[in-house]
Amino acid sequence: MNKYNKVVLAYSGGLDTSVIIQWLKENYGCEVIAVCGNVGQDSELEGLEERALKTGASKLYIEDLTDEFVNDYIFPTIKAGAIYEGKYLLGTSFARPIIGKRLVEIAKKEGADAICHGCTGKGNDQVRFELAVKAFDPNMKIIAPWRIWDIKSREDEIEYAEKNNIQIKINKETNYSKDMNLWHLSHEGLDLEDPANEPKYDKILELSKTIENAPDTPTYITLDFEKGIPVSLNGEKLSGVEIIKKLNKIGGENGIGITDMVENRLVGMKSRGVYETPGGTILYQAHKNLEELCLDKETAHYKEMVSLKFADIVYNGQWYTPLREALSAFVDKTQENVTGTIKLKLYKGNIVNAGMTSPYSLYSEEYATFGEDAVYNQKDSAGFINLFGLPLVVNAKMKSKTKGEGK
Amino acid sequence: MNKYNKVVLAYSGGLDTSVIIQWLKENYGCEVIAVCGNVGQDSELEGLEERALKTGASKLYIEDLTDEFVNDYIFPTIKAGAIYEGKYLLGTSFARPIIGKRLVEIAKKEGADAICHGCTGKGNDQVRFELAVKAFDPNMKIIAPWRIWDIKSREDEIEYAEKNNIQIKINKETNYSKDMNLWHLSHEGLDLEDPANEPKYDKILELSKTIENAPDTPTYITLDFEKGIPVSLNGEKLSGVEIIKKLNKIGGENGIGITDMVENRLVGMKSRGVYETPGGTILYQAHKNLEELCLDKETAHYKEMVSLKFADIVYNGQWYTPLREALSAFVDKTQENVTGTIKLKLYKGNIVNAGMTSPYSLYSEEYATFGEDAVYNQKDSAGFINLFGLPLVVNAKMKSKTKGEGK
Amino acid sequence: MNKYNKVVLAYSGGLDTSVIIQWLKENYGCEVIAVCGNVGQDSELEGLEERALKTGASKLYIEDLTDEFVNDYIFPTIKAGAIYEGKYLLGTSFARPIIGKRLVEIAKKEGADAICHGCTGKGNDQVRFELAVKAFDPNMKIIAPWRIWDIKSREDEIEYAEKNNIQIKINKETNYSKDMNLWHLSHEGLDLEDPANEPKYDKILELSKTIENAPDTPTYITLDFEKGIPVSLNGEKLSGVEIIKKLNKIGGENGIGITDMVENRLVGMKSRGVYETPGGTILYQAHKNLEELCLDKETAHYKEMVSLKFADIVYNGQWYTPLREALSAFVDKTQENVTGTIKLKLYKGNIVNAGMTSPYSLYSEEYATFGEDAVYNQKDSAGFINLFGLPLVVNAKMKSKTKGEGK
Amino acid sequence: MNKYNKVVLAYSGGLDTSVIIQWLKENYGCEVIAVCGNVGQDSELEGLEERALKTGASKLYIEDLTDEFVNDYIFPTIKAGAIYEGKYLLGTSFARPIIGKRLVEIAKKEGADAICHGCTGKGNDQVRFELAVKAFDPNMKIIAPWRIWDIKSREDEIEYAEKNNIQIKINKETNYSKDMNLWHLSHEGLDLEDPANEPKYDKILELSKTIENAPDTPTYITLDFEKGIPVSLNGEKLSGVEIIKKLNKIGGENGIGITDMVENRLVGMKSRGVYETPGGTILYQAHKNLEELCLDKETAHYKEMVSLKFADIVYNGQWYTPLREALSAFVDKTQENVTGTIKLKLYKGNIVNAGMTSPYSLYSEEYATFGEDAVYNQKDSAGFINLFGLPLVVNAKMKSKTKGEGK
Repeated sequence: MNKYNKVVLAYSGGLDTSVIIQWLKENYGCEVIAVCGNVGQDSELEGLEERALKTGASKLYIEDLTDEFVNDYIFPTIKAGAIYEGKYLLGTSFARPIIGKRLVEIAKKEGADAICHGCTGKGNDQVRFELAVKAFDPNMKIIAPWRIWDIKSREDEIEYAEKNNIQIKINKETNYSKDMNLWHLSHEGLDLEDPANEPKYDKILELSKTIENAPDTPTYITLDFEKGIPVSLNGEKLSGVEIIKKLNKIGGENGIGITDMVENRLVGMKSRGVYETPGGTILYQAHKNLEELCLDKETAHYKEMVSLKFADIVYNGQWYTPLREALSAFVDKTQENVTGTIKLKLYKGNIVNAGMTSPYSLYSEEYATFGEDAVYNQKDSAGFINLFGLPLVVNAKMKSKTKGEGK
Repeated sequence: MNKYNKVVLAYSGGLDTSVIIQWLKENYGCEVIAVCGNVGQDSELEGLEERALKTGASKLYIEDLTDEFVNDYIFPTIKAGAIYEGKYLLGTSFARPIIGKRLVEIAKKEGADAICHGCTGKGNDQVRFELAVKAFDPNMKIIAPWRIWDIKSREDEIEYAEKNNIQIKINKETNYSKDMNLWHLSHEGLDLEDPANEPKYDKILELSKTIENAPDTPTYITLDFEKGIPVSLNGEKLSGVEIIKKLNKIGGENGIGITDMVENRLVGMKSRGVYETPGGTILYQAHKNLEELCLDKETAHYKEMVSLKFADIVYNGQWYTPLREALSAFVDKTQENVTGTIKLKLYKGNIVNAGMTSPYSLYSEEYATFGEDAVYNQKDSAGFINLFGLPLVVNAKMKSKTKGEGK
Repeated sequence: MNKYNKVVLAYSGGLDTSVIIQWLKENYGCEVIAVCGNVGQDSELEGLEERALKTGASKLYIEDLTDEFVNDYIFPTIKAGAIYEGKYLLGTSFARPIIGKRLVEIAKKEGADAICHGCTGKGNDQVRFELAVKAFDPNMKIIAPWRIWDIKSREDEIEYAEKNNIQIKINKETNYSKDMNLWHLSHEGLDLEDPANEPKYDKILELSKTIENAPDTPTYITLDFEKGIPVSLNGEKLSGVEIIKKLNKIGGENGIGITDMVENRLVGMKSRGVYETPGGTILYQAHKNLEELCLDKETAHYKEMVSLKFADIVYNGQWYTPLREALSAFVDKTQENVTGTIKLKLYKGNIVNAGMTSPYSLYSEEYATFGEDAVYNQKDSAGFINLFGLPLVVNAKMKSKTKGEGK
Repeated sequence: MNKYNKVVLAYSGGLDTSVIIQWLKENYGCEVIAVCGNVGQDSELEGLEERALKTGASKLYIEDLTDEFVNDYIFPTIKAGAIYEGKYLLGTSFARPIIGKRLVEIAKKEGADAICHGCTGKGNDQVRFELAVKAFDPNMKIIAPWRIWDIKSREDEIEYAEKNNIQIKINKETNYSKDMNLWHLSHEGLDLEDPANEPKYDKILELSKTIENAPDTPTYITLDFEKGIPVSLNGEKLSGVEIIKKLNKIGGENGIGITDMVENRLVGMKSRGVYETPGGTILYQAHKNLEELCLDKETAHYKEMVSLKFADIVYNGQWYTPLREALSAFVDKTQENVTGTIKLKLYKGNIVNAGMTSPYSLYSEEYATFGEDAVYNQKDSAGFINLFGLPLVVNAKMKSKTKGEGK
């Protein structure tokens, strides 16, 4: 085993990372610097420093990353319209790179010789953390205890914690495996592990009401976007963080943004999860609607393809790659005119378009309607169709010439 | 103006095509054969023959195309997962080619020298009809009265009808422009022409209840698929037509499948419409869910791109092209194992996954879970990440070597 | 027919545009402003003003667009790696937009009420010109005589010229239809119209020696690129225009860049042409080689797809579209490190890589070789393969479980 | 270390695999079954059985896979037009899966409990072999000595061979690392490891003359294709194997198909190699030319994208995946009319199109030419351009309305 003097640990304060502090000290004789990157899981941060020190860390950094998270990770992804496998809004995926980057910064400042994370060896997060570390310090050592230690289950973990007198309130009850941040809350495990099971939403949901329990009267909201980014809610200019927080509340209240899916992990297997992304789902829908007005067809269609790649890249933890940056350059160029106002009706899980306007709208009532207009001459269609259809004519003539021998 | 002896007309029995019969006879001195392709707009077919003859047609063909429509057009498109601009399920798009093809068959049988349709010069349907005609008879003449006559509005039309004593019940009230078939009902025009207006769903919807008026208790359904095609509903083996009809009823009752969008027409402008596709929306969602279980990741991701192209092709009326056929060959190959059972909960506009199973499922609870298993060795992840992340390491090392001069 | 007072004409000085001056004056009674956009066809410009005025133009603009052509059209396309249908380096395609843009600028300055071009109704160039005009002045009228007049052949044209006493040296010999600029020379027509015919290169080639007549000793050259753009040749810093001119000479001497293809025109039919692009072919190859060193794999592979779209866009005359701009934003981001030196051997039609270096090279001899190194641990491969291959394992296990019923 | 009774070894008869036989027996005490898959490296097969037995194998299988290699691997890849990174014709890539598949078949027949290969831990071939094994027997154990033993260099290997009295003629001279089969010969290592070095083709090439030494008179050949597959050469019906062999000779004589590239390996690093693919390069070029005649534009353009993916898939060893099969279904559909005759001139490294014909040609001299024809009405172009250009008009009008505030 390698020897380390000082290890920076991605720390949450839960059982896993508390046990890891002890395990690191025991196995490497190293000092452990705990780092908690705050990406919006606020309530869990109280009392964290005390807990970290009590369980053996020499120091705790609590890094407020929420603004950076929203502006540099969430908004570029909204602009890209990136959705993984048609459903997942990437809530965990883009939270890992920002934390990984901060871990490297602190490790360098502290002169640490390794970075440690508590991700299991079967998930995507280990990849996302480690790629971020590699991008910012390709020589930094990485420790992933779940891939190397003998602890193989929650029972093993609790036993280890008790044996080592790790003073942490342990919840022996089984529970879904969760990941929470400003953008979303994910749920995996237990009965969800069988895709044949309908999710027990009454027990699962924390950010949202069930669609059945949502109010019987709709909620109307208005969102203003500038260059693809939301800037105000219901007419009030707000920071990105504030908009998301408010939308999470409004959306959650109306049962918006609950997703159940079987997804393909990067590491080769499928997994099943339930996601709550109330505010995010509203923002995606609003942004998509506005693009319908403001993007021309060729740009919009090509961007659909780019969205797919962008989602893969983010999901795979490849945020800090030249390709992600080049895709973002494409996306940003497309967003220059995505400015306007979207009105939405939220009602029991539904987001209903309730009207939209933009100074850069490419929609023209004059052209769209049935009647005559100054620009569009209906006779032009005949020529258009003849040329657009010429390849079919050529093909049909070839076929009749070859007496149907050809295709 | 060309001279024609016998013209085959795509006939619906409404004001437009009734006026066209008269106009054709007046302008070309030709016999008019009316053809009504039944793609599921059943109720409108009663009394149609009498009306056609009374308004001047020499003959009416009513062609039942519903089974062919479902099996050869709708199902291949569901299997492809094709959705135009993220919203539109192509209901009108794939109805035109099948009718166009039948028009050519009848024109040949009747020895007609031209085919006529009542589409305006500003829409997609003229393209879809004419491309179908060109594909099956590249020499057939096509007449599109709206692109050449002097009638420029509904008022002109009514005046022409009255002047020519065309005996048809004329609805002088303005109304949305609609297209209905087994798969969907579309609405355009009037207040919808301003995207700032929220649709008046109470007035618009015909197949569906509004989400507010849908029942307060959910409806559960079960769908079985074989090789990507729905074969039974709630355990009962049914034809494709029957499944869609029943799902339209169930879905409509629950406010499912109502879409409001600004779309990009093929002919260069944007238009705004509301679509009702209750059964179709359920089938798409069910099929997508099943693919999550049965398609491997690489196939699923590549198919997302193919879906985009397939949607464009269908929307553009290019059904009878070598590319559509080749894309379908791709799609069919991917569907060989898309067999299984999907349970869904329908509730006030929501389609909620309520469990799914497949004998070909690629999901494995054993691999997905946290703990140890026989196949997946968590230590393998370290090697995977090191190689997957190697390009980032190489890039980072190059950058540090060039002292940050590089990107 | 519309009435015009002043028409700006894209003028070359050949028979076509000379005849058009007369025809415009005769049919519209308008003043004709001739504009010749110089994009590198230098030798044809001598005596042009005299000719223009003698044949009826009231004024001739000769616009030197060569530098702008290279920097704003050619270089962005090289950086994009855009090649149409695997062969065509877009020489004519990107020359039309720059001329079209200048035509609008002059038309506005002159207060002209229409722009006229001499493109036929069967080619791509009419589209490229007119799209440029529409982009910069959507209300400008466009006159395309070949689509409307009664002249249907070269014979008709000559007859019209003689009848109208148009004093221009007329070459009655038939000849290939050509388009020449700084970047390339294209040839169409005559015996080339049958793809079964081998091109008579001895008669066709003007910029290049035949590969058989090229020298028996190779020529070595060195090209330096900065951010994807060539900046020096054989160690000498040169402008883009100079580099291309010199490479045309060197390349032409060595029989480089001769292409024979059947291509798909935008307007629906196929055509066959021979292109000479000596310097351009060298630049593309050099740039591609350098990207092999400087782009990471994911960026390089995605860029291959973008190149295809970029080529379509340019070929179709859609230079001034939001999508072309967004694709260029992507491309520019990828080029930040495409800086280095390429050595090439030119020999009888071949461009042979003769070594390359870059300060941003991502190639590492240490990693690539067989033996041990500090970064790459060969044991990692086992883990990589196990995870990369996991979907195949899962699929194989599913198949054996379903006893081969599945695929 | 695991224990094995019987191991099937991918055997070539060279130093590596001879040493492996000994090492397997020493470390696992197992019986070793040597398997040589003949994919066209004929000359190396003489005396192989004797050598295998003498160096410790209990049995040697020589499997003639050439016909299957050509028909089931090479031809589908030609049809797909798959080229890795614009240069590499995948010669090694598709040879590994066929051998891997045969290894599993023999392992099952022999009751072996593991499969062993001699690939290093840094290359692509380990992945290709192992993915094939996983696809056909997901439970089969795989031994990759280079990833686990202590031998780290050629010197170590020779020492081990001498110490163990392995009777094999050892070539102590350093040499390029090569891979040869019916399709190609690759070269890596030595001076090629620095991309700054020009390859010493005089020393490297084995299948081909240098372009300088190729004959001074061109060679003309004729190839007939049926549904995308070459079926005769110079008018003589031949098997695929025979066509490739003859083209290798003719092409090699004329210096055709020599490629020098820096490529991106699957395992994360770049490598530099020289490939000789004389016959293959001719077949690709001929097939591409024929597709220019026989594929319509939309199919051809989409297929360009599919080619890129197909190349990745093959390069990555993912031959036996659902996606490769689905892509092949797409490709096969596109090839139904790719039937015709291609004449080529080969001359000092150049492949020059010398005329082509096809009964399914979609090229029409009548439409392509300048003059009038029966099908194409030049006036149609005006309408086409107006609609095709409408989005630019709309965009320009929006911009002028927003007074240039927008983009």
